[in-house]
Amino acid sequence: MKNIFKLNYEVKLKMIINEYKVGREFMGRLDHGSDLLKSLLSIVQEKDINAGVVEVIGACKRSVVAIYDQEKKVYNNVVLDKPLEIVSCTGNISKLNGKPMIHLHIVLSDHEGKAFGGHVMEGTEVFAGEFYIRELLGPTLERKHDEVTGLNLWA
Amino acid sequence: MKNIFKLNYEVKLKMIINEYKVGREFMGRLDHGSDLLKSLLSIVQEKDINAGVVEVIGACKRSVVAIYDQEKKVYNNVVLDKPLEIVSCTGNISKLNGKPMIHLHIVLSDHEGKAFGGHVMEGTEVFAGEFYIRELLGPTLERKHDEVTGLNLWA
Amino acid sequence: MKNIFKLNYEVKLKMIINEYKVGREFMGRLDHGSDLLKSLLSIVQEKDINAGVVEVIGACKRSVVAIYDQEKKVYNNVVLDKPLEIVSCTGNISKLNGKPMIHLHIVLSDHEGKAFGGHVMEGTEVFAGEFYIRELLGPTLERKHDEVTGLNLWA
Repeated sequence: MKNIFKLNYEVKLKMIINEYKVGREFMGRLDHGSDLLKSLLSIVQEKDINAGVVEVIGACKRSVVAIYDQEKKVYNNVVLDKPLEIVSCTGNISKLNGKPMIHLHIVLSDHEGKAFGGHVMEGTEVFAGEFYIRELLGPTLERKHDEVTGLNLWA
Repeated sequence: MKNIFKLNYEVKLKMIINEYKVGREFMGRLDHGSDLLKSLLSIVQEKDINAGVVEVIGACKRSVVAIYDQEKKVYNNVVLDKPLEIVSCTGNISKLNGKPMIHLHIVLSDHEGKAFGGHVMEGTEVFAGEFYIRELLGPTLERKHDEVTGLNLWA
Repeated sequence: MKNIFKLNYEVKLKMIINEYKVGREFMGRLDHGSDLLKSLLSIVQEKDINAGVVEVIGACKRSVVAIYDQEKKVYNNVVLDKPLEIVSCTGNISKLNGKPMIHLHIVLSDHEGKAFGGHVMEGTEVFAGEFYIRELLGPTLERKHDEVTGLNLWA
């Protein structure tokens, strides 16, 4: 009983719940051979999007995903140096050091359908990519270093 | 030819297609150490959301996913008792017994990038979590026990 | 330095970024035993949706996913002839030869939680399916054969 109360108390204390209005919506095509993360970031910069969500489907020539070591508080890269389908790719747009930042997670599948996933890193090369970006109008979410997790989280 | 006709006929007969208008949009951060499903449900309750869709990315300390046995009509839990990335997490908000209910599916990846997935159960502990909730304004979808599948489906 | 410049140049030259306004939103239930792709397409046709995004969660009795061979430029089917959870399913709605076309990718998980994924093909049979379709109002995206990839991409 005590634990449940404590949990609820902490939830109310720290959870961030920002409300947004609908902004612009974008759908389009990424370039063959482009870097997945850099391409999406160039769209976000060009269209001046402060907050939003992102989706991509398509395929990659080569993928670099990172998995966070929650104990050592470091990201370890997993390089998947082969053609893979982008079977899911979702993320959000916010700010880090005043600049737009895309936090993007991905699921990829190989020629047998086996699935792999992680946090998208630079070096992920697009074979074909179709994106959907949804702008959210409202409070800016700014990332700051979080001591508990070691991650840059919304503060 | 007969089979195709029969399929189309059944589709028209039973399929549910509800139309909604855009409601509020929420983006924010779940608490480190909180229960993924309970945290999202607390937001849905606090904001009084009747229908909508949910997305989460982040990482879990521990995950409990369920896989439905379609023949025996029971959910079997798979406990993934290790740190994993939330590489995809999508679901919807509707009602069960008059109360808000979140139907949430997840894909997780381990330190090698290998992906696992299932229906999110209580006991899934958040390491870091960023959610996006989109409220839909329109007809309430109420879940009822469905005899064919054994699941609580929209009736 | 030269390579970076060239990449940026190409990005500006070929990338497609269309802007849309919010349209109708649909949420509902697919039929037990129906074909996942055909069912979604029947909704898109019935509601006359020209552009948009799609999400599904649920379970399949049987799944057919395709993985693109980027070198040989052919899709290879992977038949997963067993019950699987739909742990992620996202895609978009556009046009091919003037008709609505759904480009849909899926992640499925088996009784141990192991994940598989690919491009959804006809023959994927729904056990239970809950969809969310978001209509986008704006320019039509028409698919044309792309020589570089061998795929039908937005031109």
